[in-house]
Amino acid sequence: MLKGAGAAAAVPESLVVFTPSGLRGHFETGTSVLDAARALGVDLDSVCGGRGICGRCQIEVATGKHAKHGITSLADHLSPWSTTEQEYADRRPMKPSRRLGCSALISGDLVIDVPADSQIHRQVVRKEAETRIIEIDPVVRLHYVEVEEPGLGDARSDLQRLLEALEKEWDLSGLECEHSVLVGLQRTLRDGKWAVTVAVHDGETITAAWPGFHDRAFGIALDIGSTTVAGHLCDLHTGEVLASAGVMNPQIRFGEDLMSRVSYLMLNPSGAEEMTRAVRDCVDDLIGELAQRADVGRAEVLELTFVGNPIMHHLFLGLDPSELGTAPFALATDRAVRMKASELDLIVNPGARGYMLPCIAGHVGADTAGVILAEAPHQADPLTLIADIGTNAEIVLGNRERLLAASSPTGPAFEGAQVSAGQRAAPGAIERVRIDPETLEPRFKVIGYDPWSDEPGFEGTRATGICGSGIIEAIAEMRWAGIVTQDGIIDGSLAERSERIVPEGRTFSYRLTEDLSVTQNDIRAIQLAKAALHAGVRLLMDHMGIDRVDRIRLAGAFGSQIDPDHALGLGLVPDCADVSAAGNAAGTGARIALLNRASRAEIEEVVRQIEKVETAMEPRFQEHFVAAVGIPYGAGESSRPRRRKR
Amino acid sequence: MLKGAGAAAAVPESLVVFTPSGLRGHFETGTSVLDAARALGVDLDSVCGGRGICGRCQIEVATGKHAKHGITSLADHLSPWSTTEQEYADRRPMKPSRRLGCSALISGDLVIDVPADSQIHRQVVRKEAETRIIEIDPVVRLHYVEVEEPGLGDARSDLQRLLEALEKEWDLSGLECEHSVLVGLQRTLRDGKWAVTVAVHDGETITAAWPGFHDRAFGIALDIGSTTVAGHLCDLHTGEVLASAGVMNPQIRFGEDLMSRVSYLMLNPSGAEEMTRAVRDCVDDLIGELAQRADVGRAEVLELTFVGNPIMHHLFLGLDPSELGTAPFALATDRAVRMKASELDLIVNPGARGYMLPCIAGHVGADTAGVILAEAPHQADPLTLIADIGTNAEIVLGNRERLLAASSPTGPAFEGAQVSAGQRAAPGAIERVRIDPETLEPRFKVIGYDPWSDEPGFEGTRATGICGSGIIEAIAEMRWAGIVTQDGIIDGSLAERSERIVPEGRTFSYRLTEDLSVTQNDIRAIQLAKAALHAGVRLLMDHMGIDRVDRIRLAGAFGSQIDPDHALGLGLVPDCADVSAAGNAAGTGARIALLNRASRAEIEEVVRQIEKVETAMEPRFQEHFVAAVGIPYGAGESSRPRRRKR
Repeated sequence: MLKGAGAAAAVPESLVVFTPSGLRGHFETGTSVLDAARALGVDLDSVCGGRGICGRCQIEVATGKHAKHGITSLADHLSPWSTTEQEYADRRPMKPSRRLGCSALISGDLVIDVPADSQIHRQVVRKEAETRIIEIDPVVRLHYVEVEEPGLGDARSDLQRLLEALEKEWDLSGLECEHSVLVGLQRTLRDGKWAVTVAVHDGETITAAWPGFHDRAFGIALDIGSTTVAGHLCDLHTGEVLASAGVMNPQIRFGEDLMSRVSYLMLNPSGAEEMTRAVRDCVDDLIGELAQRADVGRAEVLELTFVGNPIMHHLFLGLDPSELGTAPFALATDRAVRMKASELDLIVNPGARGYMLPCIAGHVGADTAGVILAEAPHQADPLTLIADIGTNAEIVLGNRERLLAASSPTGPAFEGAQVSAGQRAAPGAIERVRIDPETLEPRFKVIGYDPWSDEPGFEGTRATGICGSGIIEAIAEMRWAGIVTQDGIIDGSLAERSERIVPEGRTFSYRLTEDLSVTQNDIRAIQLAKAALHAGVRLLMDHMGIDRVDRIRLAGAFGSQIDPDHALGLGLVPDCADVSAAGNAAGTGARIALLNRASRAEIEEVVRQIEKVETAMEPRFQEHFVAAVGIPYGAGESSRPRRRKR
Repeated sequence: MLKGAGAAAAVPESLVVFTPSGLRGHFETGTSVLDAARALGVDLDSVCGGRGICGRCQIEVATGKHAKHGITSLADHLSPWSTTEQEYADRRPMKPSRRLGCSALISGDLVIDVPADSQIHRQVVRKEAETRIIEIDPVVRLHYVEVEEPGLGDARSDLQRLLEALEKEWDLSGLECEHSVLVGLQRTLRDGKWAVTVAVHDGETITAAWPGFHDRAFGIALDIGSTTVAGHLCDLHTGEVLASAGVMNPQIRFGEDLMSRVSYLMLNPSGAEEMTRAVRDCVDDLIGELAQRADVGRAEVLELTFVGNPIMHHLFLGLDPSELGTAPFALATDRAVRMKASELDLIVNPGARGYMLPCIAGHVGADTAGVILAEAPHQADPLTLIADIGTNAEIVLGNRERLLAASSPTGPAFEGAQVSAGQRAAPGAIERVRIDPETLEPRFKVIGYDPWSDEPGFEGTRATGICGSGIIEAIAEMRWAGIVTQDGIIDGSLAERSERIVPEGRTFSYRLTEDLSVTQNDIRAIQLAKAALHAGVRLLMDHMGIDRVDRIRLAGAFGSQIDPDHALGLGLVPDCADVSAAGNAAGTGARIALLNRASRAEIEEVVRQIEKVETAMEPRFQEHFVAAVGIPYGAGESSRPRRRKR
């Protein structure tokens, strides 16, 4: 079909140029646009192999004179609208300008545009604050084929005839076939009257088969956190997120924080199994909920990806995490783990596969690998600092040249524990605080309510506690208002100026509301937590031999809530002009691994190369810690970082 | 260590020659014999990697002057007997002339003999009537390694350190690790104090791990027949068969022959599942029995291989065999099937794998593939005819140039069904018959009893029936004695000469004992069966364009029992000077696939290349069938094939 530009031929030939790729060639009259695209290697999608069923190969003619190409492209340089196209358009609406590439035959010079939604490797821009565009190229793909019927004297088996059809039509050779598919293959082929759609995993294995044409394929990216398990169900063709949901991790009943869970299982011989059971059940329930919300059958879910901290990673995979509880914190595996979903007792398509991102070190898990995949510091020139802050802070520092990672034991204060009025970030929690430096009066915002405490409509709202971001803002504001000294002491002498400052034993508290105060102990707890974070960051900067970073990304639930100005003000992170929240970057990383097969090899390589720094081994960590306990930036200090007015 | 022959060196060097390989090299004093062997690529076994634990690297010094090599080889050109060697010899007896290759260090010129039992790729001669030597090279191998302990500041996981040790010591790279192994890896490494033995499957996957040193690895070859399921448990290191056993296939309760079983499952919606369950349970019970007999733990069984006819193949693998019951007899798969043993619900090592040989066509199964692997017609020049005779006869014809296969519907007469006094080949059945042409008196032999019926000690023995080989001999002898005509009619006129010939309705019978006779109907049934076999053979000979074959092998239980002379006499197979029994060739094929990894690719390729002939498609099959109904060789005929006197 494809002829060299200069070849002479008896059959009339036309010049066809595809955009946006610019690929071009001469084709005989009667060649289909899809065949022409395939011959040239143009990125034009098709599931049905050119039978007018899937509608994925839609194209448009760019009509008019194209001086650049020296041709005039006209809509009637394609064969007339066919009955196949009409039948498709009757089933699914089609834009009037569109044609099916498999039905439309070339009969004259053409410039043909392949719209974004007809490209196999389309790009999806994430909705959140963004660094990375995801190219949709999932590890599992659907292929429709028509298989030769068996006949007397033809000893080829059903599987053999299927494999030959896949090789002929899709150039897929050497495929293996999942046993679960083989078991149902005879029925599937006969039910589909020898037409079948198969799912091919990683170009290697047939993992599912449906009778006839089938173009629904979904995947779920799961972030298994200590507190919550969150999932996104995605259409593997469009990359679109069809449903998102989160549930509490049921392991909370085994202990509020990770270390108490490890203690539980060290004391209970069957503890690890019990906890594995619990988290897998929870993930399976979440899959059910996501499928229901998106109106997708569980059997249509073909791929799962997972991220989680090392302990959740181990428990979920059925590995004993006890070793992670004591030095030297040896992981069972730091490779990516591939498995069948059925091995994890998850009810999805019987051939569905799972992929757990690699852990980085004993305290730096697959969730951090997800954060790296989402923020992609290894692809950028600026020196990026990423901190995912929870009971531990996972810290990543570097750029395309070099990447370091460490974990710092911040403790649970940032999550509202160890704080007298602390609570989780949930409706009722104070999340924003401002203090007037003149009057020392506070105003604040409560999660779940729009107005600030001094705005109309706030009346009757009751704050139930202070969440992590609230306590950070409260303390930073107290420092800026002069209520707290550089050493972190609440200045009792101000009790004369304001009723908000109240004595409590030998120290003082700041009364935020009728029943919620910031105590001296609260400030101490936050000082220790932020000193640990700061020391970890400084240690990595020492290793890197740098004094400043170019940008800072705060990841995780807490990291996304805190106001960058207050974070800088409190000295949580080093001075930097570019500080922003990364959102649920770990979950985004899982979604990237779900939608783009190349990203898996990418993160595996990055994790292999990353330099792991063990904070507990470093004497300088203690020095940095001690130096970082204070709260540097007081009222009116000129070195205080920029601060936006609200 | 290895130096070129001409290299000058400060350290003294010695010439070392290994036999039987003849490989040679110069080595510095202090090099171990094992290291020297490895450097030269000498086939010297080791599981423990040179730690004096496994004792697999035993060698002997060929002492004396070796004119051929220009050296004098002396036992004291090796370092003195070491404590490691003494410790090993205290645990396991060692021949006095032997040394451990890993402990004995080179200190002078040597000729070193690697005995057969120290070679990795040793050869085992089968005990049965033999065509083929098995080279022991199983798909699963054991490797002992010592793994680095985890340390603070070393972020490598347990798995990573294990993989690095395997790569360093055994040159195994890119290994995957079975999830079931990963789950227990932390415990295994710590229980073994960082020494561990792993099983590596096909050089690709770690499928099992034991703490410390472990050198027991077993496999089972299973032949899943319609009537019986037989297994051989083998030591994967020596190739030795440690236990053999057979049990009745419980599927007999679903129907005596295969087609009645297919009918059962066509009528019962859950029939296929029920029958899959039954045969898998039976195989699992047999595995238990074999393990007990051989004093081997089920968890030490690392590999299974299977053969079976197409219907048993499908049922065992969980594939619906209904399609095999009607034209065009399409197989679900004709590829070899690889699976985890756990997928078949078999209780062996959790990482154990299974391998089912490929089916050839709808009526020619994995059992025939096993027969081909055992008899290896594709490796020989003579034109070989192999017939595996049961309810169907599977026929293979050819040589290294070309191979044909077909199945012929012989029916169950050869197995004793459709014969009035017929029974299975079991104690009590008449298996041998001779008839005196003068007196027309018979003498016979009964299974389970040594003397013939006319010999002392036979008194009191009661024959309960006639098995397939017995009826073949009886009819051939009747023909030779003139009792039966060429058309297969019992000559009633002989009733005058002998009381053995008795009228029965409008035909006559031949009375073998008080209550067992050969009736006219029995002869008709055998005539039809042998005509089907003969027609199938002739059809393949037509396809091949030949009139004679060079050798004939009769496989299967029936094929092994019948006397070749009688088989020829009855016209069961074409005239041939070289007819013999192949024994349980299908089972032998399964054993070859168990013990030699290369044989798997070999049989898969042979099966791909083999020409499948569908007898039902060939008009000439009917012609040959009609022509073969008669019994050609009568009394005194000169064309009668040779006959041994007993």
